[in-house]
Amino acid sequence: MLIVGERINTSRKMMRKAVGDWDADFIKNDALKQVNAGAAMVDVNCGTFVSDELERMKWLVETVQEVVDVPLSIDSPNPEALKVGLKGHRNGRPMINSITAETERMEKVTPLVVEYDTLVIALCVGESGMPTSVDDRLKNASVLIEVLTSAGVPPENIYVDPVVAPISTDGGNGKMVIETIGRIKKDFERVQTICGLSNISYGLPLRKLINQNFLTMCIAAGLDAVIVDPLDGQMISNIYASEALSGKDEFCMSYITAAREEKLIL
Amino acid sequence: MLIVGERINTSRKMMRKAVGDWDADFIKNDALKQVNAGAAMVDVNCGTFVSDELERMKWLVETVQEVVDVPLSIDSPNPEALKVGLKGHRNGRPMINSITAETERMEKVTPLVVEYDTLVIALCVGESGMPTSVDDRLKNASVLIEVLTSAGVPPENIYVDPVVAPISTDGGNGKMVIETIGRIKKDFERVQTICGLSNISYGLPLRKLINQNFLTMCIAAGLDAVIVDPLDGQMISNIYASEALSGKDEFCMSYITAAREEKLIL
Repeated sequence: MLIVGERINTSRKMMRKAVGDWDADFIKNDALKQVNAGAAMVDVNCGTFVSDELERMKWLVETVQEVVDVPLSIDSPNPEALKVGLKGHRNGRPMINSITAETERMEKVTPLVVEYDTLVIALCVGESGMPTSVDDRLKNASVLIEVLTSAGVPPENIYVDPVVAPISTDGGNGKMVIETIGRIKKDFERVQTICGLSNISYGLPLRKLINQNFLTMCIAAGLDAVIVDPLDGQMISNIYASEALSGKDEFCMSYITAAREEKLIL
Repeated sequence: MLIVGERINTSRKMMRKAVGDWDADFIKNDALKQVNAGAAMVDVNCGTFVSDELERMKWLVETVQEVVDVPLSIDSPNPEALKVGLKGHRNGRPMINSITAETERMEKVTPLVVEYDTLVIALCVGESGMPTSVDDRLKNASVLIEVLTSAGVPPENIYVDPVVAPISTDGGNGKMVIETIGRIKKDFERVQTICGLSNISYGLPLRKLINQNFLTMCIAAGLDAVIVDPLDGQMISNIYASEALSGKDEFCMSYITAAREEKLIL
């Protein structure tokens, strides 16, 4: 399971303040904590800074890389901001978060995936907006996989995100994502799957409880990567347990080691 | 989700002592706690008392029924002990735990299911012992479903238990159970599924963490009932969350109500 740390995102109040104040220490400290807690990549998003997102992105990427060696996930709907982030990236292979099946976005982001040899999150969003069914999601995923692989992107660098909608508005929204993950793993053998969890619990109490259980279900369905807060110890514990339960942890050695190192909580 | 409380089982040390001492207060107190925590049925098992299991079973069933109104799950491999428990049962429709696809056991237990109009746990164990594959499990389940329904048992009274083996001995043991649940729900529409969880984590540290995540996966696969310790608050919280995520809780109302009543923990 590839864990992408989601905390450095200016939609979070503390991060908005830190990035607004050019508070490098706060950012560095947070990035370090995420990596120490198990993040193999760190996502950086400063999309709330509409007028100077490019300048903030450049600074964020530099700042985070001063303390951690893991690659970053450059997160923006704006291809210019993606480009600035990728230019400044130097630790391994970065991730682009994200591309969608919208024509304009595909035209602008695909060349960046190729030029910078990145991993890429392929959101199952099409020209007509948010998907409403499993078939919708698969159709958008197919378009994206076709466009990206035709441009030379190896399938294993593509991380399909089924797009999560809240179960509070439609009880079937969880099952749709889980079914989509299973279908992607079956239909596109080398393509990977990823998921941002938190939308699933929108509008409900104890959101973490819903998010945690949903991640466990997604892992059982074959999920390869997740965008998550690695400081949520219960979530990390569930990932170790779920990987062992899914037969992805030979002799449960990672689970047993994590328990010995007191990384797991109940 | 039908929750069967598993605590009154003399394989647990405190229960062995209480039943050995004919300590009715201890038993009653435990049964009450289980029902208050959400058990819709209470399992009673005194199988460690080999020489006087029948007498202990009779007493256990009477004692528990003095304080709770829910039906009991009469739990023994011994048909005579089942019979004694069923004779003394008076609150609604009891459950028999369990029948297997072994010829002698089917011959002795099927008439009890019919005579006492019970629910019945159908363990996917056959003449050749513990099942080792999904196909093995399905074969044993088919035999049991055929024998029971031919004797007049309604399919919805049959709870198939796939039989759980530890992931510490074979990393595929979790996936096999999950696949079996899905296949049973697909192949036998009206038949129910149930699972005793705790074997899954045998030999591993932090067993509850494994059990909790496994239950979440089983619910996503379509599990209808579970034999569990209802005093495990995290487990009960996960059940509420998992039912909502599986689209089995309309508008998430049970989840929201449980949260309001402070029944859920993180």
